[in-house]
Amino acid sequence: MNYRMIARIIGYATITEAVLMIPSLLIALLHGESILGFAVAIGSLLAMGLALFSRRPESSNIYAREGFVTVALCWIVFSMFGALPFYIEGMTQTYIDALFETVSGFTTTGASILSAVEGLPYGLLFWRSFTHWVGGMGVLVFMMAVLPLADNRSMHIMRAEVPGPVVGKLVPKAKNTAMILYGIYILLTLLETVLLLIGGMPLFDAVVHAFGTAGTGGFGIKNNSVAYYGSAYIDTVIGVFMLLFSINFNLYFFILLGNIRPVFKNEELRWFLCIVGASVVIIALNINHMYGSFGQSLRYAFFQVGTVISTTGYSTADFNQWPELSRALMVGLMLIGACAGSTGGGMKVSRIMIYAKSTSCEMRRMMHPRSVNIIKMDGKSVSNEVVHNAQVFFILYMFTIVVSTVLVACFDECDFTTNLTAVIACISNIGPGLEAVGPIGNYGFFSPVSKLILTLNMLIGRLEIFPMIMLFNPETWKRV
Amino acid sequence: MNYRMIARIIGYATITEAVLMIPSLLIALLHGESILGFAVAIGSLLAMGLALFSRRPESSNIYAREGFVTVALCWIVFSMFGALPFYIEGMTQTYIDALFETVSGFTTTGASILSAVEGLPYGLLFWRSFTHWVGGMGVLVFMMAVLPLADNRSMHIMRAEVPGPVVGKLVPKAKNTAMILYGIYILLTLLETVLLLIGGMPLFDAVVHAFGTAGTGGFGIKNNSVAYYGSAYIDTVIGVFMLLFSINFNLYFFILLGNIRPVFKNEELRWFLCIVGASVVIIALNINHMYGSFGQSLRYAFFQVGTVISTTGYSTADFNQWPELSRALMVGLMLIGACAGSTGGGMKVSRIMIYAKSTSCEMRRMMHPRSVNIIKMDGKSVSNEVVHNAQVFFILYMFTIVVSTVLVACFDECDFTTNLTAVIACISNIGPGLEAVGPIGNYGFFSPVSKLILTLNMLIGRLEIFPMIMLFNPETWKRV
Repeated sequence: MNYRMIARIIGYATITEAVLMIPSLLIALLHGESILGFAVAIGSLLAMGLALFSRRPESSNIYAREGFVTVALCWIVFSMFGALPFYIEGMTQTYIDALFETVSGFTTTGASILSAVEGLPYGLLFWRSFTHWVGGMGVLVFMMAVLPLADNRSMHIMRAEVPGPVVGKLVPKAKNTAMILYGIYILLTLLETVLLLIGGMPLFDAVVHAFGTAGTGGFGIKNNSVAYYGSAYIDTVIGVFMLLFSINFNLYFFILLGNIRPVFKNEELRWFLCIVGASVVIIALNINHMYGSFGQSLRYAFFQVGTVISTTGYSTADFNQWPELSRALMVGLMLIGACAGSTGGGMKVSRIMIYAKSTSCEMRRMMHPRSVNIIKMDGKSVSNEVVHNAQVFFILYMFTIVVSTVLVACFDECDFTTNLTAVIACISNIGPGLEAVGPIGNYGFFSPVSKLILTLNMLIGRLEIFPMIMLFNPETWKRV
Repeated sequence: MNYRMIARIIGYATITEAVLMIPSLLIALLHGESILGFAVAIGSLLAMGLALFSRRPESSNIYAREGFVTVALCWIVFSMFGALPFYIEGMTQTYIDALFETVSGFTTTGASILSAVEGLPYGLLFWRSFTHWVGGMGVLVFMMAVLPLADNRSMHIMRAEVPGPVVGKLVPKAKNTAMILYGIYILLTLLETVLLLIGGMPLFDAVVHAFGTAGTGGFGIKNNSVAYYGSAYIDTVIGVFMLLFSINFNLYFFILLGNIRPVFKNEELRWFLCIVGASVVIIALNINHMYGSFGQSLRYAFFQVGTVISTTGYSTADFNQWPELSRALMVGLMLIGACAGSTGGGMKVSRIMIYAKSTSCEMRRMMHPRSVNIIKMDGKSVSNEVVHNAQVFFILYMFTIVVSTVLVACFDECDFTTNLTAVIACISNIGPGLEAVGPIGNYGFFSPVSKLILTLNMLIGRLEIFPMIMLFNPETWKRV
């Protein structure tokens, strides 16, 4: 294990975070708010960064396991320092609460321990939403885009941080791929901000909502989330952009190149749109009696389906009050999640496709033991390794959900539905679940230990399980 | 597809069922009860059997897919005729209710639509519990033991009906294997009956409870299940036998041969006992405040853990009223289930082991991409095919649970926990779930469509998914 190189990359990351905190500090200054929290955080980040940076590594080589460990450690360090402003400025009572809120931000979960956010300092609200934007595309992908890291090192990190069963490069160099991804990300975020401004949203609100949508995070700055604006236009803009940010960013790259064919031929996109379309129609019919007209129920169904499948977590209606069919369907959508290579969470549509295809493949094999069966996606065959990895991912995902639900039940006497959907909403990086953690609820009532368990779930979900598990696996740290 | 051979085997099966119904008819006669239901059922079974038997198949060859289809069809036909006595004698109001009860019997689920069973005719109660005993070891395994079927045909059927990731033969001939399995089954059932008689249980009660335990079914003849007897001795006998019947029967064969070593070296048994032991201790500590002494809480924890992990479903305490930790843990145990090659349901401990081992294997591969990793169980390597099949099984299991929960929510406005645990309790062939379907609840309140969905779940769970899915897959019926 190349410890010095891992330390160096974490050093890069802490310095990057210090830089990323400056805009929030400036906004705090601008509004005449206390900047103590940001100043302390930036100071300690820089100190830590320089300390980690001081010793030159003998070799700059890193391999797969260093990649996983680095990504996992970076996210933990990032969250621990990112929580300082919230804690120091007294937004949360305990450091664990601040950590929960920060991890919820970076992992783009959007689950909050706060029962009221209106009236909080602008600087903190901006930082809270900005963590979504930074975490959405990936902290380390950002570093790769701006820092001079060798290409082979970058790929190991990119594989561990970018969601999806297969992570490829758009262009031969990983660094350039990262730059292109961030370019598209910035462009789409700006576009949404402008469209929200046109809808009459104040500038600050528009920017933080664009951050929350872009990262598919879901932190709002109003106590009743997007419902506050009560505007069908704003609902639609945010609804559409939630879906746009849950699509594989590679497709935007093809569009930028003027190559529209891969978009129409993309199987994952077709599945995604079919799932969204079918769910919206079923739910709209199911909730029709609650909203006067079918148009209205379609509006609320569209937004809430978008918010859950994109794993954002904004809300314009309390789906916890919907009929049981819609509630159960929402839980199903929570597990599916967004497309691979997007900023969304969950298991990803492409994995669901791999599961469906490998199942039908296996049944053919069972019926005709000597037949040869290959799984194809977008016309290309999927290797057995990718299929096997996706299956292990599924098993670990479900295992984590079951174990976490039992553990949360150890420390909190909530009902089963609350515990289960809290865990699902955290591991899938959504935010709201059902019952006590529904769209109008929050996570403040959980005990500190449960909050830590849920925090870990958010990290496990965002990094797609393996990096976090490897971090805690003694075998990772063995000498080869 | 060799349709005539499939028809012939189903013909065998219906005639077998007619014969198996005779003891219940005799008991009804003995108690001076109406025998109309049994007479009609036996008559139609014989008629159907003879009709299916009339045309001689051109070839007696059957292959894997015929094996799956035959098993699935046999179970459906068996259940449809088995329900006739309940319906005709007016025990249930609708035929769907009777079908639910019968499938629940044959699949050894033990979920009932009846709110009260005391006072029902003896003949019907006997038949209800006898279905557990017949379904536990397998309808077709029974046929294989007594009928002259060629060996290669038998294996395809045995693979489809006997639970577990790998089904092997104890002795070179499948027929003899089936006979040995049934021999052990009868021996253990008799032993339990005698022990229950010693505990002061009336003969009829002892026999039906032995049937329910042997099949890990759980239908009782008292409204509050085994709690009625209020005897620590009876609790212990049934508790221990529930566990004995959820162990791989191959181990008993080794014991009969005087070869005790495989029993101690059996990894699945060790895992099973560790899971049971740990769960009993955790739950006993968790419910300690409810039962006066630790001894008492240990007694109730042991029985309820045994009833759930063996997928039996008897109860001596209402675990729905237990603290949330115990409730969540029970749901986790429901998913695990018994050992492979037993009469229990669920995913089976050996599959859980394969998942654990393939996960750690996959992580090693991710860290050291060039390493070679083989999964071993009991010292023997497990083939990739078996691992892959177990993984597809897991995915289908979870998929069925999610889809069924949504479908049940379409037709019934119960709470999420009721719907979800009803589905889990049915697919894992347990019986009681949480909330409205808890140990003191029943399934009578569900709408007819939900009852059919849950019925299908029981069959899917008992036959371990693939046979039922293949039956409804158009590709199965294609010409090769």
